[in-house]
Amino acid sequence: MKTFMGKNFLLETEVAKALYHNYAAKLPIIDYHCHVSPKEIAQDKQYSNITELWLGGDHYKWRAMRCCGVPEEYITGDASDYDKFKAWCASMPKLIGNPLYHWSHLELQRYFDCDLIINEQNCDEIWTICNEKLRTPEMSVRSIIKNSGVKALCTTDDPADTLEWHKMLAEDDSFDVQVLPAFRPDKGLNINRAGITEYMNKLSAVSGIEITDVDSLKLAYMQRLDAFAELGCKTADHGLDGYTAFGEASNYELTEILKKALASDGAAISDEELTKFKTEMMAFLASQYKVRGFVMQIHFGVLRNQNARMFKKLGPDTGFDTVGNYDMITPLSRLLDKMDADDKLPRTILYSINASDNAAVAALCGCFELSGDGKPKVMQGSAWWFSDNLDGMRRQMTELANLSAFGNFLGMLTDSRSFISYTRHEYFRRILCDLIGKWVENGEYPCDMDSLAQLVADICYNNTKDYFGFNIV
Amino acid sequence: MKTFMGKNFLLETEVAKALYHNYAAKLPIIDYHCHVSPKEIAQDKQYSNITELWLGGDHYKWRAMRCCGVPEEYITGDASDYDKFKAWCASMPKLIGNPLYHWSHLELQRYFDCDLIINEQNCDEIWTICNEKLRTPEMSVRSIIKNSGVKALCTTDDPADTLEWHKMLAEDDSFDVQVLPAFRPDKGLNINRAGITEYMNKLSAVSGIEITDVDSLKLAYMQRLDAFAELGCKTADHGLDGYTAFGEASNYELTEILKKALASDGAAISDEELTKFKTEMMAFLASQYKVRGFVMQIHFGVLRNQNARMFKKLGPDTGFDTVGNYDMITPLSRLLDKMDADDKLPRTILYSINASDNAAVAALCGCFELSGDGKPKVMQGSAWWFSDNLDGMRRQMTELANLSAFGNFLGMLTDSRSFISYTRHEYFRRILCDLIGKWVENGEYPCDMDSLAQLVADICYNNTKDYFGFNIV
Amino acid sequence: MKTFMGKNFLLETEVAKALYHNYAAKLPIIDYHCHVSPKEIAQDKQYSNITELWLGGDHYKWRAMRCCGVPEEYITGDASDYDKFKAWCASMPKLIGNPLYHWSHLELQRYFDCDLIINEQNCDEIWTICNEKLRTPEMSVRSIIKNSGVKALCTTDDPADTLEWHKMLAEDDSFDVQVLPAFRPDKGLNINRAGITEYMNKLSAVSGIEITDVDSLKLAYMQRLDAFAELGCKTADHGLDGYTAFGEASNYELTEILKKALASDGAAISDEELTKFKTEMMAFLASQYKVRGFVMQIHFGVLRNQNARMFKKLGPDTGFDTVGNYDMITPLSRLLDKMDADDKLPRTILYSINASDNAAVAALCGCFELSGDGKPKVMQGSAWWFSDNLDGMRRQMTELANLSAFGNFLGMLTDSRSFISYTRHEYFRRILCDLIGKWVENGEYPCDMDSLAQLVADICYNNTKDYFGFNIV
Repeated sequence: MKTFMGKNFLLETEVAKALYHNYAAKLPIIDYHCHVSPKEIAQDKQYSNITELWLGGDHYKWRAMRCCGVPEEYITGDASDYDKFKAWCASMPKLIGNPLYHWSHLELQRYFDCDLIINEQNCDEIWTICNEKLRTPEMSVRSIIKNSGVKALCTTDDPADTLEWHKMLAEDDSFDVQVLPAFRPDKGLNINRAGITEYMNKLSAVSGIEITDVDSLKLAYMQRLDAFAELGCKTADHGLDGYTAFGEASNYELTEILKKALASDGAAISDEELTKFKTEMMAFLASQYKVRGFVMQIHFGVLRNQNARMFKKLGPDTGFDTVGNYDMITPLSRLLDKMDADDKLPRTILYSINASDNAAVAALCGCFELSGDGKPKVMQGSAWWFSDNLDGMRRQMTELANLSAFGNFLGMLTDSRSFISYTRHEYFRRILCDLIGKWVENGEYPCDMDSLAQLVADICYNNTKDYFGFNIV
Repeated sequence: MKTFMGKNFLLETEVAKALYHNYAAKLPIIDYHCHVSPKEIAQDKQYSNITELWLGGDHYKWRAMRCCGVPEEYITGDASDYDKFKAWCASMPKLIGNPLYHWSHLELQRYFDCDLIINEQNCDEIWTICNEKLRTPEMSVRSIIKNSGVKALCTTDDPADTLEWHKMLAEDDSFDVQVLPAFRPDKGLNINRAGITEYMNKLSAVSGIEITDVDSLKLAYMQRLDAFAELGCKTADHGLDGYTAFGEASNYELTEILKKALASDGAAISDEELTKFKTEMMAFLASQYKVRGFVMQIHFGVLRNQNARMFKKLGPDTGFDTVGNYDMITPLSRLLDKMDADDKLPRTILYSINASDNAAVAALCGCFELSGDGKPKVMQGSAWWFSDNLDGMRRQMTELANLSAFGNFLGMLTDSRSFISYTRHEYFRRILCDLIGKWVENGEYPCDMDSLAQLVADICYNNTKDYFGFNIV
Repeated sequence: MKTFMGKNFLLETEVAKALYHNYAAKLPIIDYHCHVSPKEIAQDKQYSNITELWLGGDHYKWRAMRCCGVPEEYITGDASDYDKFKAWCASMPKLIGNPLYHWSHLELQRYFDCDLIINEQNCDEIWTICNEKLRTPEMSVRSIIKNSGVKALCTTDDPADTLEWHKMLAEDDSFDVQVLPAFRPDKGLNINRAGITEYMNKLSAVSGIEITDVDSLKLAYMQRLDAFAELGCKTADHGLDGYTAFGEASNYELTEILKKALASDGAAISDEELTKFKTEMMAFLASQYKVRGFVMQIHFGVLRNQNARMFKKLGPDTGFDTVGNYDMITPLSRLLDKMDADDKLPRTILYSINASDNAAVAALCGCFELSGDGKPKVMQGSAWWFSDNLDGMRRQMTELANLSAFGNFLGMLTDSRSFISYTRHEYFRRILCDLIGKWVENGEYPCDMDSLAQLVADICYNNTKDYFGFNIV
């Protein structure tokens, strides 16, 4: 029997152990898709206790606690930080098989040098150990990032954001990790939602371009894209949820749709109008990403805010999204074809949050691979969010390998809101090395350690660096 | 090589063997979802031969025989019981990898103390052994149930049923296993099917409430719900097949729809009308389940009666249903949200018969988890029917663990029409212990046998007892 | 560690090794679904170099090279054959986990007696070895086929084809492998595509029946079916892509649809009209297959020609198709039911190219199993195209076994355009023996080597021979 989460956790073969310990573990991290706060990095925040750090904004954990029947008071409510932490510890033993179980113990081991099992009995001891450690300088946000081996990270930022914290970081020479904005324009594309009018006003203000029609909207976006690019932005991110049809319209009709959205604050917009507007704006933005060398990330297979009662209470991103199983491939394929038609398709990463779509996504990428530059053009991204577990990561990698060129895979991202989740890269790397190790031990791939080491380095780091064009020495 | 279906069948690790033999094997059974006949229990039926018991109503086996090219005469036709049994035995060797192969051998071993391989050569010997045993008192229906360790079971009953056999059982002190009705109102919800008018008349008669509009229909259901509750009913069951959209309507419109259904015996009802009616009635019934503490079970992902020719000949539940892969998650999520909006969502179990939906179902549950009472509110149910096989059960448990709290899982049900299928609980428990054993041996979960034993006891028995509120001492 | 692709490649247990080496490896091949050229067989073509043989028409490899960023010049363009081969070799190491990696090395080992690893360094040596070998008589097309153990193969032929090469082969006594046409009428069913008018003219000409309405179209098909049958045809093949609804129409309406298609060269045909036309023609053709004893193959789950730019440049079947995840089961089930209603459903094989549909397809087959002749009527076919990989084949076999009678499985097909891809049968047989071996070693199936050998022989050869009715001595 293997030690619980010991040195060779998830590494079953000798090849896997060698690849992980000698190579993968030592590679730096580029976290090109996450939701940490640039403000907290700029201010080099220090956390007051483990609850703030671990449970403050992590809706993955909130969801797990709700599954355990924990009252909302101890999740997002008014209970004390200690009581919330205790509720979390008490929930943990039931999370056998859940990635949160591994993530939490990995974080405890790596960041707090603590091997305790998380459960109700150990709660107080862990509480004390963590909170003491959190008071030390090595647990400031910047120290955590740096000590985790992170070379670059991309936060998630709205086009209407002023990027003030990013500007501050860009001017700050004292922190040599690249903290770059990523362009996430979902809000402005969902013109059927309440708040769209206010949003467009904000976008007008920050861009200095009054948005009155589709042309001025595009100009406003171009202004923002330039502002993002100036701060080193390498990528845009789209949650293309609910895009279940493809539709085109004339510029005139699109402006009519936009005006109707602004006049009704979204309420008057039909599904068909939304589709037409999104199709046009996605194609426009893609062409702009191409010009600027941004990588376009598109994720889908999600239904958001499914609990109306809790949405009213807590807002979005609080644990009430779910996995959709509608057909996304048909409209997405037409959208990519539209972008590609005039050779305006940028480098693109596709992710489905529904693992059942893996093969369809991997195959779809292959239809638009015409870079001819030695790199893939469209790639299936790694398994994250609802698929970010042992089974899901193995499946995604296996299916990508089945249908594409695994040697070009772009590796892991955290999608995290927490600064100590870089251990997810460790988790991924162990699984990756284990998978390769099994292929080799089974005689399915030659055992040439040099080329295997290169493969691991490419997938964990080099491919991402080159594909996005990160300027890291 | 392991012995064919020997003592450690499906148990690969030492942890698995210890958990199964020392704990799981000894736990009682609550079979909360099955289709056995309360009449046969009330009458303590004795079977005349193994064909009647094994092949009399089991459309899983019928389907397998058809796949082997057996003529219908030997399946549902006029061939002798012996010839039917022989056709079944001859088919068995081709069913390698099929759960029926394991189920049948397990049943032979456990109920008939017979280790023979089922095939044509052994047919006569098995026929003799089984039929002799079936004549003994220990093979009466009640003895089988009792000797299988069953503490409680829930049959499947229509609201229009008089529940006479359940009443008889309730008054019978000589049998200390709880045999409870489960409320299955599908027939009355499918108002587009021929026979609906007669059905509503029957429901009027048994409830004593004349059904003339939606309000009186609801009153009739409430009367039946009370009657079911009086007999200890703990759960309702819905086959929500073909619910591909969500739709609401006014009370007036709903009554118009009902009247149209009754006037045309279902023929005049459009898909949209059916959807509106089902949405309203599902929401109403859910709120009533909540009041009475019933657990609501909803299964979907099925297309029923796909062979019209055979439906005319044999009717429903004869082996001509199939797995659907339409999008059920989108409308179901809206339906659950409607129920939850006024906090009228009861404890709910969701099952998709299509294993490709597993992750989507597990994730959906998490959107409505707000019990705050230490138990989950909405749970993904176990793999059954088309998913009730080694692979399907492992996948369902793995995906539930990935996305929810596995420690709260409600374990197995048989969905069976046969009294000797309780070995499916054994099958499940072996797979469960094996899964946990692997997690532990791989260092993915701590090896603390006390808490592992508790986990196994919870999943196999305690969770179900508590979640449904079975009153078992 | 196992040798890279050595003698026991993919064979993990002793049972698997015995089954493969003693039985499976020695069985002949019936390749009942492929795309090789009857002309090249008739002419006993000799290839000029390895590029022509390997990369000349294989869009699986083209796609993989594009995923590696190889410029199109080196794929379908004007680069020299040597440079194209070099680009392929250089891409190979990145294809870890891809079936092309295994297929290519198997082909190199079996046909060229060469154990080299395919990569850029070994490119020149492999180039020389292969090209020398290709000049020998044993590498003529007929020699390759014969030496591969092929007893019969079915090419893919359009109803409008004159079958001249098949006629020549039928009259040629010097080649004792059966080379039979397969009836693939997709072109004439897709009446919404440009070229349909010219196509129908061609069909009129070759059949000698002027197509003016649906009745004459059916007569033309019957003439062609007879012509195919005369040349020994055993099967028809349908790519039923994009069949997302079921619809019926009168003979009058169908003729109006056909006329509209011919007048507009497809452009005026709506989705609904296409559906009605396809439904009628599929049902008609099925009934004709039944009369002639043809096996009907239907594959789906594909979206074709998704890249419009490349379609214009290279045409169909060039690597720009993808996996669809729309709901195909609902309309297909209705279509099969229509065929079955008058007992006019022929033996039928269903394949979904999307592995997520496996269970739904396996279950669907069971709804139409009423042969009563000791053979299945509707079978799930093997995993091919996008599913033709280790994982995909294991899943397809496991899910077929779960839901059907694995002993009746029809085994492998190549779907290939290349004459050296018969090693895919070896790949399949190794996986099959390994799967059975694991079941046996785990105690899940009795270890009786005689019946296991029979099972393997049935799945690899006998079942196909009997199901299609190949007349092989």
